[in-house]
Amino acid sequence: MYDPIAFTLPEGVDLATHIAATYLYQTSASADIHKLAAALSEEQSSGTWVSLEGETPEVRERHVGKIIGIWEIPDHEVSVPGDLRTRDWILQIAYPVHNIGPQIPLMLTTVNGNIASAGRLKLLDLHFPRSYTEQFKGPKFGIEGMRELLGVPDRPLLVAMIKPSIGLTPQQSAEAFYQAAVGGADGVKDDELVVSHPWSHFLDRVREHGAAATAAYEETGHRTLYFVNITDRPDRLVDNAHRALEAGASALMVNYLVVGISALSMLADDPDINVPVLAHLDFSGAIYGSPWSGVSSHLVLGKLPRLAGADLVVYPSPYGKFPFLPAKHLRIAQALTGRFHDIRRSWPMPGGGVQPGMLPLLFGDMGRDFIVGAGGAVHGHPLGPAAGAKALRQAIDAVMANGAIRIEGSPPELAAALAIWGISEAGVKGAYDLMTG
Amino acid sequence: MYDPIAFTLPEGVDLATHIAATYLYQTSASADIHKLAAALSEEQSSGTWVSLEGETPEVRERHVGKIIGIWEIPDHEVSVPGDLRTRDWILQIAYPVHNIGPQIPLMLTTVNGNIASAGRLKLLDLHFPRSYTEQFKGPKFGIEGMRELLGVPDRPLLVAMIKPSIGLTPQQSAEAFYQAAVGGADGVKDDELVVSHPWSHFLDRVREHGAAATAAYEETGHRTLYFVNITDRPDRLVDNAHRALEAGASALMVNYLVVGISALSMLADDPDINVPVLAHLDFSGAIYGSPWSGVSSHLVLGKLPRLAGADLVVYPSPYGKFPFLPAKHLRIAQALTGRFHDIRRSWPMPGGGVQPGMLPLLFGDMGRDFIVGAGGAVHGHPLGPAAGAKALRQAIDAVMANGAIRIEGSPPELAAALAIWGISEAGVKGAYDLMTG
Repeated sequence: MYDPIAFTLPEGVDLATHIAATYLYQTSASADIHKLAAALSEEQSSGTWVSLEGETPEVRERHVGKIIGIWEIPDHEVSVPGDLRTRDWILQIAYPVHNIGPQIPLMLTTVNGNIASAGRLKLLDLHFPRSYTEQFKGPKFGIEGMRELLGVPDRPLLVAMIKPSIGLTPQQSAEAFYQAAVGGADGVKDDELVVSHPWSHFLDRVREHGAAATAAYEETGHRTLYFVNITDRPDRLVDNAHRALEAGASALMVNYLVVGISALSMLADDPDINVPVLAHLDFSGAIYGSPWSGVSSHLVLGKLPRLAGADLVVYPSPYGKFPFLPAKHLRIAQALTGRFHDIRRSWPMPGGGVQPGMLPLLFGDMGRDFIVGAGGAVHGHPLGPAAGAKALRQAIDAVMANGAIRIEGSPPELAAALAIWGISEAGVKGAYDLMTG
Repeated sequence: MYDPIAFTLPEGVDLATHIAATYLYQTSASADIHKLAAALSEEQSSGTWVSLEGETPEVRERHVGKIIGIWEIPDHEVSVPGDLRTRDWILQIAYPVHNIGPQIPLMLTTVNGNIASAGRLKLLDLHFPRSYTEQFKGPKFGIEGMRELLGVPDRPLLVAMIKPSIGLTPQQSAEAFYQAAVGGADGVKDDELVVSHPWSHFLDRVREHGAAATAAYEETGHRTLYFVNITDRPDRLVDNAHRALEAGASALMVNYLVVGISALSMLADDPDINVPVLAHLDFSGAIYGSPWSGVSSHLVLGKLPRLAGADLVVYPSPYGKFPFLPAKHLRIAQALTGRFHDIRRSWPMPGGGVQPGMLPLLFGDMGRDFIVGAGGAVHGHPLGPAAGAKALRQAIDAVMANGAIRIEGSPPELAAALAIWGISEAGVKGAYDLMTG
């Protein structure tokens, strides 16, 4: 405990063989940060609260978490104000990759296991060396693969969400699917609340929605994927995936945080699963929601599902019904699409109250590599769901052509949507706004 | 949205067919709580941010979340103070069990899915009707089953944690196992950071520790389980379980929150897995840590792993190295051992800095149905790990016999431990204390 090996220097650590974790940490004003940082790094590697005979210098040298950064915010130098009750720190600890092995669960246990219970401590960032990430396949399709699959080389995609979320028969949801598809949706996803129910089994939806996709294709020549929600405990998830594919599923959807992030890597490694996989955000707020504990959203909804193999990730749109900072949305999009060794890029799909008038904002944030995820704006459009999907495709085309969007001169579907919902700078004006408090 | 069906009356809801969720929720002082509560309940069932043609009264009646309680804390009646910026509420929403099906992931998506991203909202409690819980087997052994398996009818159990956590060969950790076993441990568990590594594969540990258990049994006639950590992504977890059992494993351990809670129910339903399963707390703080978001610890570390089939759950001891409220430890223990339809009782195993001088406090809190989980107090004992285990068994016996513990008259192992670590009212005096800020 608290010796020169634990309390190490950055120069001693090879970041090609370590995972670097960055934490926000609040202590009492009187705490000894050096002792505490050493205690945290040892808790997550070879130590505990007493000295141990078996914890030899060799064991520590090979396995202990190395402290590579401690900074106070603000950076007191001369004195600490006498009325401070707490002090805030950024800590960086590097964990040897060989402590972990080729899996995500033990990596999470290592970087945010017991110390997640250490009080005001939040995991802000993770930098993975290639020696860790090369053990994962990442997304099978990603941005480029899905563009090729769909034959859409350049523009953002439109994925419609079936609404109402629950209670439709497969025939009814197939009609909703068909409407969105003939309106030009590139994909249609189930609601996260729907898997298998007495009134709607996922296999029946695969068949009915597949027929709807074919009917729409024959009418328009445009292809529409169906992201069928197969969420269940992991063994049934795999079984559901195989059964869905046998029934002709074109894409899959998983509520990955309630099943477990590594369930995605299980699907990504399965050679028989050869369709895109959508990862849905539900439960994520329970992990990223606190500014003082948990794990930052760009990890939970960005880097981790990308590493695990999500082709597209639905996360909270800052312009819609969720209270969510635009800067965090940008960080998630960056984590999904920025350089990450050889891991393919995943599609950012901000969702939750997205409607046509927000498209200029989303283009401005993300360029063209994003997915417009819309449920209410499709199925709540005054001219019906086909018009709702059309309006979103028209909005995409308008911003692609002119960099902007206007009611005047717009086709009737888009004009109707803009007339009701407006061209937004701050999101929809629905009941959910109030959630921001 | 915001209609009489969504904004319903308690009398309209049959709690035998609904899961009742209780939330803490903070709004702006000017918010309309009735609109917001309706928006939350609809988000988690049939609605979204606009009205939908398909969301018929029949669909809503069958599927919508019913608001069954709204209380303000404090309960303003006459006026709301003008300087209030926020208001705090307890909300209760009842979700139809038939929305979900026999699984845990979709249940979590339903009770704390998208609305986990609704700002300051924390899931405080879940009440499950029998119609939901009867779809789960729960723990295979639980308290009574493990007492029978071990032949220990009455006293608390002692499960030792192997330390140092990482870096030991199977031969070295088998020696640590042997010492704890001859000292009287009823079980020995891996550290949560250890699964399969070049220097220690779990199958080698199963064999070596099994031999150590046999050797100790021949010497003492006392049986010691080995909880081998098989944590990995879910498909490998199942494979690891089967391979460990073929190699003779007597018990299993899973870092269940980083794999996914429902991975436990997958193991519990597997007829070939016939040994106790230990669920470890790592990552839990990322979910329960905030007072304003996430999920309360008695759910994360109590009711949910019990429902999923954990025979024993390791959670933060309030008297040890973790900052953790004693009242929360009591709630977890109650959730694991109290009445829960026909689901067997799980062992509470508070851990993290536990040492002999804390036993009176733990007996006082939990009676005799708990597990003493100790690593440092075994492997850091001044007379060695066998003495460390003996000291804990002696402490158990002393409290069983006298209701208290004293240095004077204690056997040498216990006396030595008490002399160093004291008889605590407030936990160990180690580096971790400082984590409480």
